[in-house]
Amino acid sequence: EAAQNHEDGAQFKLAYSDIEWLSPVPRTPKNILCVGKNYSDHAREMGAEKAPEHIVVFTKSPTAIAPDESTLPVHADVTDSLDYEGELAVVIGKRGKNVPKAMAFDYVFGYTIANDLTARDAQEKHKQFFLGKSLEGSCPMGPYLVTKDEIPDPHALSIVTKVNGEVRQNGSTKDMLFSVSEIIETVSKYVTLEPGDVILTGTPAGVGKGMNPSQFLKAGDEVKIAIEGIGTLANRFA
Amino acid sequence: EAAQNHEDGAQFKLAYSDIEWLSPVPRTPKNILCVGKNYSDHAREMGAEKAPEHIVVFTKSPTAIAPDESTLPVHADVTDSLDYEGELAVVIGKRGKNVPKAMAFDYVFGYTIANDLTARDAQEKHKQFFLGKSLEGSCPMGPYLVTKDEIPDPHALSIVTKVNGEVRQNGSTKDMLFSVSEIIETVSKYVTLEPGDVILTGTPAGVGKGMNPSQFLKAGDEVKIAIEGIGTLANRFA
Repeated sequence: EAAQNHEDGAQFKLAYSDIEWLSPVPRTPKNILCVGKNYSDHAREMGAEKAPEHIVVFTKSPTAIAPDESTLPVHADVTDSLDYEGELAVVIGKRGKNVPKAMAFDYVFGYTIANDLTARDAQEKHKQFFLGKSLEGSCPMGPYLVTKDEIPDPHALSIVTKVNGEVRQNGSTKDMLFSVSEIIETVSKYVTLEPGDVILTGTPAGVGKGMNPSQFLKAGDEVKIAIEGIGTLANRFA
Repeated sequence: EAAQNHEDGAQFKLAYSDIEWLSPVPRTPKNILCVGKNYSDHAREMGAEKAPEHIVVFTKSPTAIAPDESTLPVHADVTDSLDYEGELAVVIGKRGKNVPKAMAFDYVFGYTIANDLTARDAQEKHKQFFLGKSLEGSCPMGPYLVTKDEIPDPHALSIVTKVNGEVRQNGSTKDMLFSVSEIIETVSKYVTLEPGDVILTGTPAGVGKGMNPSQFLKAGDEVKIAIEGIGTLANRFA
């Protein structure tokens, strides 16, 4: 029976929950790069009168990175409005500057899922987004880093965010205003990209702040973000 | 004579210009943290109706760091409005989270000078400041990293920026709206500070954009920033 197990690999099978997952990129070489308002429905729910004409880029501290299946703090001492944002994350594989759109995918290593958690009060109060986006645990990523050859078109993926099982975001990466290759072209005009850099490509409509009334995360909540072809990123809050 | 030289150390004396200077912090563990509009005269010259009520924090890519005495690109292909900002830079020496104001200096390793070079057109166009602040060479720092014991009061230092010998900024760190200890307290509420992190504390009035008409940097210009007790950071542009 042991031989049989060995043959079909069963003895190596572990339940998903038996594994302690780490973020596929536990530490980025610079801050995580994030595109703001990259889906027009989300720009609208955040109160923007029109979608941005130019790419909006802000950053999150790499000390905010957390793994799949981890329990994350709601930071009730600092914010009363922690909000989720399910996003496709692009992982850079090659150093690049002034990368033309047509060459952009040469610089992509692969894709994962990120939750761009945001303290809405801090985001508003401090004007520039960095502080409200950088709380410890506010950038869970994972579970898998899928290499680019597995995702023939990163703009044909459904992206669904559930809070306690309820669907909150139900979008498609086809609705990005600026595509992955446009983002890489523009960002690399200003910033040297490095292997291990992560770019979050923006979130579709359906964040807690956009609800009426707004519904922010509280201790006990569970957020699951599923992106087609990549998997599901799940975190509980405490 | 050789013995004489040895005795007074003359044989070890090198001209400043014989030395290839490196930035005292060549690579920060996360993006450089920067406080925006931290001098009210500068906030006004940038068109703000009033000084910010809360600290504004944005970041610059660590790939932008450059040394004293280096020649920096004006990036004419990307911007027509590269501007200087002379700033006191605080270098963090100890990991910290939720650092109270009264303990802030325990987390400071020392001070240096930074030029927070900014592509004004990109800063405006892309809304969030990161892209316009992150061009290669846009964060020269140095020449010295002065330990904190040498600077009894970081809020009593003159800060003077000259372009081609002409005084453009002539301020004092006493005019900061948020002090070094307030900055450390607020930033560390949101972001875990790490040794080697650098915080730029904002620039006094007198940037090129604030002049009438605006005067931006061009090839051949030389910018020198002197801060009392630290030294002078000098860079040429090409």
